[in-house]
Amino acid sequence: MPTPGTLRVQLLEAQRRLREEGVAVQILVAGIEGAGRHAVINALTHALDTRGLRVHAWTPESVPAQGRPPLWRYWMHLAPRGQIALFLDGWYESALASALAGQTVSLTHPRRLEAQLRAEGSRVLKLWVALPLNVARRRLRARLREEQRAPRLPEQAVLAAADDAEQALASLRKGDPEWCVLNGERPDRLGKAALAAVLEQLTAAAPALPKRPRLPPLKDRRRITGTTIPPEPDAAALETALASLQVELARRAWQAHAAGRSTVLVLEGWDAAGKGGVIRRITQALDARLFRVVPIAAPNDEERARPYLWRFWRHLPPQGEITIFDRSWYGRVLVERVEGYASRADWTRAYAEIRDFEAQLVESGIRLHKVWLQIHPDTQLARFEARAADPAKQHKLTDEDWRNRERRPAYEAAIEDMLARTEAPEASWQVVAADHKQPARVEVLRRLVEVVG
Amino acid sequence: MPTPGTLRVQLLEAQRRLREEGVAVQILVAGIEGAGRHAVINALTHALDTRGLRVHAWTPESVPAQGRPPLWRYWMHLAPRGQIALFLDGWYESALASALAGQTVSLTHPRRLEAQLRAEGSRVLKLWVALPLNVARRRLRARLREEQRAPRLPEQAVLAAADDAEQALASLRKGDPEWCVLNGERPDRLGKAALAAVLEQLTAAAPALPKRPRLPPLKDRRRITGTTIPPEPDAAALETALASLQVELARRAWQAHAAGRSTVLVLEGWDAAGKGGVIRRITQALDARLFRVVPIAAPNDEERARPYLWRFWRHLPPQGEITIFDRSWYGRVLVERVEGYASRADWTRAYAEIRDFEAQLVESGIRLHKVWLQIHPDTQLARFEARAADPAKQHKLTDEDWRNRERRPAYEAAIEDMLARTEAPEASWQVVAADHKQPARVEVLRRLVEVVG
Repeated sequence: MPTPGTLRVQLLEAQRRLREEGVAVQILVAGIEGAGRHAVINALTHALDTRGLRVHAWTPESVPAQGRPPLWRYWMHLAPRGQIALFLDGWYESALASALAGQTVSLTHPRRLEAQLRAEGSRVLKLWVALPLNVARRRLRARLREEQRAPRLPEQAVLAAADDAEQALASLRKGDPEWCVLNGERPDRLGKAALAAVLEQLTAAAPALPKRPRLPPLKDRRRITGTTIPPEPDAAALETALASLQVELARRAWQAHAAGRSTVLVLEGWDAAGKGGVIRRITQALDARLFRVVPIAAPNDEERARPYLWRFWRHLPPQGEITIFDRSWYGRVLVERVEGYASRADWTRAYAEIRDFEAQLVESGIRLHKVWLQIHPDTQLARFEARAADPAKQHKLTDEDWRNRERRPAYEAAIEDMLARTEAPEASWQVVAADHKQPARVEVLRRLVEVVG
Repeated sequence: MPTPGTLRVQLLEAQRRLREEGVAVQILVAGIEGAGRHAVINALTHALDTRGLRVHAWTPESVPAQGRPPLWRYWMHLAPRGQIALFLDGWYESALASALAGQTVSLTHPRRLEAQLRAEGSRVLKLWVALPLNVARRRLRARLREEQRAPRLPEQAVLAAADDAEQALASLRKGDPEWCVLNGERPDRLGKAALAAVLEQLTAAAPALPKRPRLPPLKDRRRITGTTIPPEPDAAALETALASLQVELARRAWQAHAAGRSTVLVLEGWDAAGKGGVIRRITQALDARLFRVVPIAAPNDEERARPYLWRFWRHLPPQGEITIFDRSWYGRVLVERVEGYASRADWTRAYAEIRDFEAQLVESGIRLHKVWLQIHPDTQLARFEARAADPAKQHKLTDEDWRNRERRPAYEAAIEDMLARTEAPEASWQVVAADHKQPARVEVLRRLVEVVG
């Protein structure tokens, strides 16, 4: 076994290489209070170059996710490419607490997060500092006596653990071969063991990526483009409907705020389908304190250095607010797929990633409203030409819009796939015929009013 | 007067030009509840290209600064270069609330923020929607009757305003010629008036920057480099002292956490002065949940797009935690000054900006501990050579370190200026002789223990 000195040299070398290769490393140090996780974290921060390293640990009093899904705060602190994040328990925090309390544990979202991280090139290292509950209790009691103080919350959880907690913790760990188990009974050896384990995993070849998911064939394709454009309905009636929907939306937005209910509106649609007009009718109605509009453009360098969905996670609304995404994570399976910005493996995997992301929103109580604004190619052409002629709208029309238009059949296939593969209960698509602007706005607002609740 | 149509075309053109020039625009829309600020914001979001625009408004229930200074959340949401941020009241939020409640108002920090923004190339536009209090009250009461509801908090503030609030609000506004006052009594004209005012300011020449501040001559220069290195003190006694300081620090950090008291530690020093070792002795002692280490390196593109201090504001600790800056905002007046990365105007201005920043930390109850680790040039040379020879430390030594060493006299002047010009009550420098590592660590920890409190 190498001495700590050479271990450290090798670790630094591994860290340097991963930094140069732009690999993100997420390290979890999990276990119960008193097991020795802090000794492991200290050994790692001592050994590694701290310039590329961040430690993330929270007390029970830390500001929590404020209505966002429980994984939000881990997402927010993922190491970017080339750096290392060290998490105390990390995304197993609540599973560990549940196991201690004798409650059932779901690992679905943590496991999917890890799969997603690995698929995008992160290394995920999972260290478990294991210590029998009775030993941990003895240690904690001795420490409390020595420091003459009452137990803190995480300590209380260990002291008051359920009878079958030992078994629950063991099964949590044993169901997953990726955990590297360190023996907490020998605190003096913990640091060195941790360094050796991390070195071994950092220098091992990157784990083989799972194959590109085979997408199940679609039974029902929803055909989006009709052959004709319907006649324009009565304008005056629509104006009245729109105005009363706006009043109702304002009322419900304040109610939702008072009740701490958040809403995410996803607006997707063809270029010139009228997203801007829809958004304006919504934001006119709302108090500026209750919503944010997030226009999605090319990612910046903080965003490019992290997994794809990070730049959407970061804009999720806090409790009681509404976030409107003007384009969204669906870019992955639309423009990125059609234009080849994402690899085939990336966009085929994205359907499941998006379903999981949206499921987490829904589970945490966020209302989700996904809109596709559909227009006929002739409508689009007419609007492009009108934009080109109007100095107040010219900025909305780019060469890219014309190029996208040329690829309409490829986009149609991608859109129909998207609608079919990401339809889910409480994450359902509203496909709106938007050849006429006013009825489209009324339709979106009518549904939004229901969703905001 | 131009029609709204041409106004909009001209606004879009102005927005496009400022985006191309990489100018950040911060727009404040201030006034009392009911005056018509939302109509102004709607008119602006309607007229401008929303892709480069964010609106920032908070309800009284929004998560506040969590122990950071009141201006923290505005800093966090400043428009980056090329974009526009629209703030409802913005950094006058608390001044407006105080005026309404008949309390005294301090505008020191908002005014300094604006000066700083302008000095770094932001445009700052200040719109005030003015409405007499009695008119606002009438409007609010009519609205409450119509919507059959109780007043919300900001509405209550207007309904219950102090007798002399009208005067307090007027003097708040009249003391500052930069406010562009819009008449809230004619809601139908507000939008157009706001567009015209914004257009005028966006197309006007950028306001002349104030001259480079003339720095007052220094009376007392603190000479930092002595001619000799003192002999190494007794090692065993220091080990014992260090260990007991670590125990005490751990205890006090939990106490501070319980009391919601935060600490910021700024560690500066010569290359190879031993910052890493000091940090390790501190972090070994602390629970990982109570602190963050923030190593300061070159800014990334999100950081470069914002005023200089943004990247430090973003890392301020939440209530009850400790943030350790491994190098800091003092880079501006050290490496950036000496190496010419900052212009002379930038670094001379920085002393006042830093004093204001630190004053805000102190005022909001954050404990500040600033350390300069001082070593003799011979000590540095010996450590550089030891690093070059040690494979576990080679990564810490770069060509830049040797280059900086060549410029020692220029750095010494910059350091002595820094120590003299940024010394302040509760923001005092601890200059530590660090030619011997262990006594330096003991000195820093001893003071830190007192500061954490």
